[in-house]
Amino acid sequence: MFDAVDLGEEVTKGDFEQEEPQLHSQLLELQRRIGATSSAVVIVIAGVEGAGKGEVVNLLMKWFDARGVETNAFWDESDEERERPRYWRFWRALPGRGRIGIVFGSWYTQPIIDHVEQEDAPQALEPEIRRINNFEQALHDDGALIIKLWFHLSKKEQKHRIKSDRKDRKGNVSPLAKKYSKHYDDFARVCERVLRLTDRGACRWYLVGADNRHHRNRLVGRTLVSALEGFLNHPADSPEPSTPDPAPPVYYNSALEAVDLSSTITDDAYDEQLDELQHEIYQLAWRAHERDVSMAAVFEGWDAAGKGGAIRRFIQGMDARLYQVKQFAAPTDEERAHHYLWRFWRQLPRAGYSTIYDRSWYGRVLVERVEGFARPDQWRRAYGEINGFEEQLVEHGVVLLKFWLHIDPDEQLRRFQEREATPWKRHKITEEDWRNRERWDDYRQAVDEMIARTSTVYAPWTLVAGNDKHFARIEVLKTARDALKKAVS
Amino acid sequence: MFDAVDLGEEVTKGDFEQEEPQLHSQLLELQRRIGATSSAVVIVIAGVEGAGKGEVVNLLMKWFDARGVETNAFWDESDEERERPRYWRFWRALPGRGRIGIVFGSWYTQPIIDHVEQEDAPQALEPEIRRINNFEQALHDDGALIIKLWFHLSKKEQKHRIKSDRKDRKGNVSPLAKKYSKHYDDFARVCERVLRLTDRGACRWYLVGADNRHHRNRLVGRTLVSALEGFLNHPADSPEPSTPDPAPPVYYNSALEAVDLSSTITDDAYDEQLDELQHEIYQLAWRAHERDVSMAAVFEGWDAAGKGGAIRRFIQGMDARLYQVKQFAAPTDEERAHHYLWRFWRQLPRAGYSTIYDRSWYGRVLVERVEGFARPDQWRRAYGEINGFEEQLVEHGVVLLKFWLHIDPDEQLRRFQEREATPWKRHKITEEDWRNRERWDDYRQAVDEMIARTSTVYAPWTLVAGNDKHFARIEVLKTARDALKKAVS
Repeated sequence: MFDAVDLGEEVTKGDFEQEEPQLHSQLLELQRRIGATSSAVVIVIAGVEGAGKGEVVNLLMKWFDARGVETNAFWDESDEERERPRYWRFWRALPGRGRIGIVFGSWYTQPIIDHVEQEDAPQALEPEIRRINNFEQALHDDGALIIKLWFHLSKKEQKHRIKSDRKDRKGNVSPLAKKYSKHYDDFARVCERVLRLTDRGACRWYLVGADNRHHRNRLVGRTLVSALEGFLNHPADSPEPSTPDPAPPVYYNSALEAVDLSSTITDDAYDEQLDELQHEIYQLAWRAHERDVSMAAVFEGWDAAGKGGAIRRFIQGMDARLYQVKQFAAPTDEERAHHYLWRFWRQLPRAGYSTIYDRSWYGRVLVERVEGFARPDQWRRAYGEINGFEEQLVEHGVVLLKFWLHIDPDEQLRRFQEREATPWKRHKITEEDWRNRERWDDYRQAVDEMIARTSTVYAPWTLVAGNDKHFARIEVLKTARDALKKAVS
Repeated sequence: MFDAVDLGEEVTKGDFEQEEPQLHSQLLELQRRIGATSSAVVIVIAGVEGAGKGEVVNLLMKWFDARGVETNAFWDESDEERERPRYWRFWRALPGRGRIGIVFGSWYTQPIIDHVEQEDAPQALEPEIRRINNFEQALHDDGALIIKLWFHLSKKEQKHRIKSDRKDRKGNVSPLAKKYSKHYDDFARVCERVLRLTDRGACRWYLVGADNRHHRNRLVGRTLVSALEGFLNHPADSPEPSTPDPAPPVYYNSALEAVDLSSTITDDAYDEQLDELQHEIYQLAWRAHERDVSMAAVFEGWDAAGKGGAIRRFIQGMDARLYQVKQFAAPTDEERAHHYLWRFWRQLPRAGYSTIYDRSWYGRVLVERVEGFARPDQWRRAYGEINGFEEQLVEHGVVLLKFWLHIDPDEQLRRFQEREATPWKRHKITEEDWRNRERWDDYRQAVDEMIARTSTVYAPWTLVAGNDKHFARIEVLKTARDALKKAVS
C-alpha cells in the first residue's frame, strides 16, 4: 500500500505556485457551496510524523475562509480530556452543518501508537476498528462528508529528515518523529492494517506522498477540490446513474510504469526452464492435493497480453484432475441477479484443488468502472469488499496468486495487427478490443488504483512483464512454483 | 435483552388460526410485489435450540409461493463445505433479485458456538462481528432486504422441553438442545453481545418469544408483513420524510406493565431512609471524587412522574461542588447543526464529578420518534449508536445510571389537575403536556422498545414505580447508593 504512494519527486515549487491561485479560488467557491448545505465537512489530517502535517493545516487555513472553518489539533491530552472517554474530544470538535472542521491528529493516532508499542495480536485492534467505523458511519449517516488524508514519507526521507534535523534544523522535527522512525516497519505494518480496515467507500483514504512538499501541497489542494465537488454533485452516493465526476488526482505511482518491459529470455533458456518448472509444479500440485491445500490463480491483463498462453503453459504442468479453468466474461442473467461477488464465491476450489481464473472479480474495478457498468459508489466499495473476500480465502489456507500481464500499447497494436493478418487468429480480435484500446489511459488509471488498493500484505499482485511472451510465462510459473513450495513445505 | 422478550403465553391456537388466512394472503401479495423489484429478500432464522425453528421454516414454505423462495439449512457442514472458506455456503445460497431466501442456521451459529465453548475473551469475537457486519452491509448495499429473526426460549421452557422429550417425545429435540441447555447462561451472554453488535438500523434483529408456538407463529407472520411492507414503501431508507409505516408488531413484554405501581412507603420510613441515604451518598460522592470516579445519572419518565422531585432529593445528598444538573429540552440552533449525540458528548462529567441529566439522549427514540422529528431510519439507528456511546462511558469507568420514572395515566391526570388547581404549580403544566398525554400508547410503545433495546448488561435501565413519589425517591437513592458503593470499593 505505502510502497505505491506517488512521492512526486519531480514536482517543483514553480509547479505548485502556478496552480495554487486556481486551487485557492476553487476551494473558496466550494466552501461557499458547502455553507448552503446541511452537511458538515470533516478533514482528517493523519499520517507519519515529520510529514509536515502542521504545514498542511496552515495552508488550509490560508485557502479557506476562516469564518467557516475550525481547526483542532489533538496530540497532547489535556487533563480535561483525559478525564473523559477518549472520543469526547473528537465529538466536541466536530464542525456544525455547512462548516468545515480540520482534525489534526485524530481518532487514528492512539490505536496505532498503542499497537505499535504493545506488539499486540492483530485481534486487539478490532474493537478500535469497530469504534472508528461506527463513529465515521454515524457522521456519514448524519450527512457529513469525511475526507481522510494520510501523509506518507518514504523510509529514506524519514531517516534523512531526522538526520538533517540533528545537524542543522534543530527543533523542526518533533521528538515523536525520532521515536517512530526507529520502528518504521512495525509502524507501517500496523498502519497498513488500520487503513485497510477503515477504507470504506464513503469514508475512504487518500494517500498523499509527503517527501516533496510541493507535490504534497498541490495534491492536498487537488484532492479537496475533487472530493468536495464529487460530494456536492451527488450527496450520499445517490443511486441514480451519476454524471461523471471530474477525474480525481493521482495518488499512486503507476505500478505499471515501473514494470521493465524490456525483460526477455532466450529460446533455449525458455525451453529448459519451462520444462523444469512444469515438472516441479506437477509434483507440487500433487503434494498440495495430499495436504488439502488449494490454489486460486487470478489472471488479469491487457487484451492480447498473453493471458491465454500463460494459462495454457501453467496447466500443462498440472495433472488435469487437479485443476479447473474458469472464464469470466459478462455475467449471465442469473449472475446479474446476485451480488457481483456471488459468482466468484461459487467457483472456489475444493481443498486440494486449483482454480485458474481467466479474468475475475477484479472486473468490477476495471471494465465495469471504465465502461460505467458500475456506479462510482459501487466500484469504490468494491476494493474493501474484495480485500475482505481475499482475506477469507487466505485465512482458509488457499494459495492466492494474482497476475497482471502487462504490455505496452505498441506491442498490443503489433499483436492486434498480427491477429488480423493471420486467418486462424482472426477470431481472437474484435471491435471491442479496438474500442478498449482507445481507452488505454482510463484503463491504466483503473489498473494502477486497483493494484494500489488491493495489493495487500496477504494477497499482493504480481506484475508480469509481457512484451516477451516467453519471459512472462516463465515469470508466472516461477511465482506459482515458489508459492506452492512455501505452502506445502 | 432476552428477559424482555414477549413470550405471548396467553395466545391460543384459535388466535393464530383466526389470523393466519390474512397473514397468508398478505405475504403472497408482498412476495408478488418483491418479485417486481430488483431486491432480494434474505430471512435469517436464528436463535436457541429447541425453539422450533424448523417448524417456522415449514410454515414459511406453506405461506410463500414455492416458486419464488428457496430454503437453505446450514448445520452439518458437508465435505464440500468444509473444504472452502466458511462463508462459501452462505454466498452460494443467496437468493437472486426478486426472490426470497430462507436461511436456517446461519453465519451467526458458528461464532456463537465457538465462543460459548472456548470461553474466549470477548475480544476474540470482534473479527467475527466485523465479518458479519461487512457481509450484511454488502448485501444491503446491493439492494437486499435482510430480515433477522431470533427465536428465544425462556430458561424454564428450554429445560422443560428437554425433560418432556426424554419422557415421551424421544427424538423430537435435537442432541444440540441438550448440550446448550446446560450452558444456558453462558450462551445467553454470548448471544446478547453478538446480537447487540450486529443490530444495526437497516439489518436489525426481531426477537421472537418461542415458548408458545401460536404466539411465535403469529409474530413471525406479522413481522414479515411489517418488514416487507416497510421495505417496499421506502427502499434503502430514503431520506425523504416517509409516510408513516404500519405499526410494527410488539416483540417485548411491556417492561412498564411489570412495574408494581402499588408500591408505597410510610412517611416515617421515608423521612428516616431519605436522611440516611442522603448522608451515605454525600460520603460516597466524596470518596468517588477522591478516586476520580464520575457518575452520569439519566432521568427519563412520563410528564409529571416526579423527575424534578427525585433529582432534587438526589442532589440534596451531594456536595454542590461535585455535581451538575443538565436540562435537555429542544436542541438549540447550534445543537441542531450537529449530530444529535453531540450535545450529550459535550456534557460529560469530568473525572470525580457527577452529571445529572434531566432528560437525555433518549429523546431521540422517545419524543423525536413519536412526534416524527426523527425519521424511522434515524431513530432505528439510534439504539445502536446509544449503546455504543454508553459502552464508551462504562469502559472509561463512569458510573452510569438510567432511571425511568413510571406512573399510570390516572395518576398523571390527577397530578395535571392538581397542578392546574394550584397557583404556584400552574406554570408546570402546558398544552404540550396534555397533547403528549393523548399519545400515551405511542409513547408507551416507544418506551418499551427503548428499554428492550438499550438495557444492556453494562448499562441496564432502572424502572422506578412512581405513583408514590416518596417510594420513587427512595428507590432512586438506593440504586445510586449501591452503584457508587460498588464503584469506590
